[in-house]
Amino acid sequence: MKIVAAIDSFKGCATSAELNQAALAGLPKEIDTVSIPIADGGEGSLAVVQQALGGRLETALVADPLGRKICVPYLLTDLAGETTAVIEAAQVLGLNMITAVSDANARRASSFGLGELIRIVLRRRPVVQQIMIALGGSATSDGGLGLLAGLLASPETTFVANPLLQSAPLDLTLLAAARRRLAGVRLVGLPDVQALFSGSTGFAKVYATQKGASPQTIRELDQQATALRQQVVTADQFDLDQLAGSGAAGGLGGMIALLGGSLSGGLTTLASLTGLEAALSTADLVITGEGRIDAQTLTGKVPYGVARLAERHHVPVLALCGARSADIGIMERLTLGCFCIQAAPVSLADAIDRQRTLANVNRLTRELVQVFCARE
Amino acid sequence: MKIVAAIDSFKGCATSAELNQAALAGLPKEIDTVSIPIADGGEGSLAVVQQALGGRLETALVADPLGRKICVPYLLTDLAGETTAVIEAAQVLGLNMITAVSDANARRASSFGLGELIRIVLRRRPVVQQIMIALGGSATSDGGLGLLAGLLASPETTFVANPLLQSAPLDLTLLAAARRRLAGVRLVGLPDVQALFSGSTGFAKVYATQKGASPQTIRELDQQATALRQQVVTADQFDLDQLAGSGAAGGLGGMIALLGGSLSGGLTTLASLTGLEAALSTADLVITGEGRIDAQTLTGKVPYGVARLAERHHVPVLALCGARSADIGIMERLTLGCFCIQAAPVSLADAIDRQRTLANVNRLTRELVQVFCARE
Repeated sequence: MKIVAAIDSFKGCATSAELNQAALAGLPKEIDTVSIPIADGGEGSLAVVQQALGGRLETALVADPLGRKICVPYLLTDLAGETTAVIEAAQVLGLNMITAVSDANARRASSFGLGELIRIVLRRRPVVQQIMIALGGSATSDGGLGLLAGLLASPETTFVANPLLQSAPLDLTLLAAARRRLAGVRLVGLPDVQALFSGSTGFAKVYATQKGASPQTIRELDQQATALRQQVVTADQFDLDQLAGSGAAGGLGGMIALLGGSLSGGLTTLASLTGLEAALSTADLVITGEGRIDAQTLTGKVPYGVARLAERHHVPVLALCGARSADIGIMERLTLGCFCIQAAPVSLADAIDRQRTLANVNRLTRELVQVFCARE
Repeated sequence: MKIVAAIDSFKGCATSAELNQAALAGLPKEIDTVSIPIADGGEGSLAVVQQALGGRLETALVADPLGRKICVPYLLTDLAGETTAVIEAAQVLGLNMITAVSDANARRASSFGLGELIRIVLRRRPVVQQIMIALGGSATSDGGLGLLAGLLASPETTFVANPLLQSAPLDLTLLAAARRRLAGVRLVGLPDVQALFSGSTGFAKVYATQKGASPQTIRELDQQATALRQQVVTADQFDLDQLAGSGAAGGLGGMIALLGGSLSGGLTTLASLTGLEAALSTADLVITGEGRIDAQTLTGKVPYGVARLAERHHVPVLALCGARSADIGIMERLTLGCFCIQAAPVSLADAIDRQRTLANVNRLTRELVQVFCARE
């Protein structure tokens, strides 16, 4: 029997590699186990790519989402023969970097630092041929205008707070200048969600609340995003609201497209890079999971993506989580079960303890595999 | 496939019958399901016997463990042709009746009311031929001396607080008088634990702490229990510390033996009365459980007892619980797994909500059975 573990990181608690190892460590010796660290384009994606492809971590000093200078990592690696820089937006613009999630911070947060980082990567010699950006987990809702400003800035330019709330219509000459800077470099964004750019399924209305935005701010953000989209439709006959993932990371997905880049589903791309799909094709059982399994899981998160891949290969799926909602939609049908790892009533603060989480995952997986194998 | 549910009540939360029903309700139609409400001699035993044997509930007015008059139930039923009264000590002397668990209350709590209830039952016409007392869950640590006083009291006698702390050596003439009152009636105690009467495995040292007793009170109780045991050894060459269960319900088990009664393991007796063992002999899977599964589970609680019976019939066991400890000893080997029903971090107060508990049991059982059947 062969069991594959591909569990997403539990945010702020344990990494994908740690969780996989905990899950597989307690199984009987005769079971063949494979750990595939995995992510969906959100937090943990950089580590997953590094584990899969190797390469070396570099660092750069750029603005965080509120404009404070921080040291951020990026990965230089070889991907199918191309020198590739891999960037995780969550490590530059992460919502977890903002201690007080508030409307004021939602109005300030900007992807400027990500633009600065791309500018720094572009100056490297030998040249980078591809820049891959994992888009999940950002604190920003700026339509990617911060990235544009940061990319074009001189090193002395000061931070530009959320330009989407401040700007007149997009200056298309800036966009052209940015495209020239990126000439010869393939830019790929890995969205972790399917959100669009504006309107009812746009980034402002779907995600800005969890980033602290007030209803009034959300209305302003969406009005500006709608205007920007309309401007691009008029100028280029290109509709950001026809591009799934354009609303990822507060519109960064859309900006990457405007800069001539492409979007490639986070989970699908990482599943391919990490060899997950190949591993599934010979597996008898796959164990996946995420910190929380609920309706949002269906928007492209790891357990859903893994379950869909497993379905294609007729492999049964066990999903683990720190918490689950009663209604998990189609995950009900795609898995044998979505099991919460808690061993007792416990506070959220205690539940996210790393050691406790890994011990619970270890115990629960061992028991579930025992149940799975009982009728052999 | 045939699945048997035999889950103990979750204290203060849901009954055995409710939990069994919740567990079995979500299973596919083609599975043959059998619900066997079960208890171990503790809380819920009366309901379990009534569900198994029928009969009618009567009530009587007696002293609660602190001496307040309360109306308590007992069951009149037919057991193998004998008119039998079934009493649940937890409903007369229950620890849950004491709102403030304290040393003062541990020093006061007395089984006097249980003696009164036996006296009332003995006066019934037609006569009762057997009295069966489920012993678990009591608030008392009085060596059963309260029961003795209550049994011999006139209806006007006032409550006698914990006589074990007050009395000189046991008055053996009282014991003889009580035996005469019980002539012709078979007295059977159902202990839920194996505790002995005195010493390191006696009721004072093992259970008085959870009933509120201070270390000083525990020492006093154990000194008195030791003296009583010695007195009986000297007078009758009978050693209470050689009788498993003599320390059940704060020594009530031992007093039942001194009154000429017998002790019969709670779980084993109820498993036989309810037809559990017969049902197991043709089952493919049994689902058991208890509010909490930990080291104490091994002292004769429902999940342990059910798992032992299932082992004899080579039936795999799934155990469910509201909370489990990391170390569950031999339960690890006796079950496929001991699964906590919580779906997320949750407070204890929220966790014991009845509807939530039943919904969690329903969902978890459905998913576990899916895992169990996956390889068919």
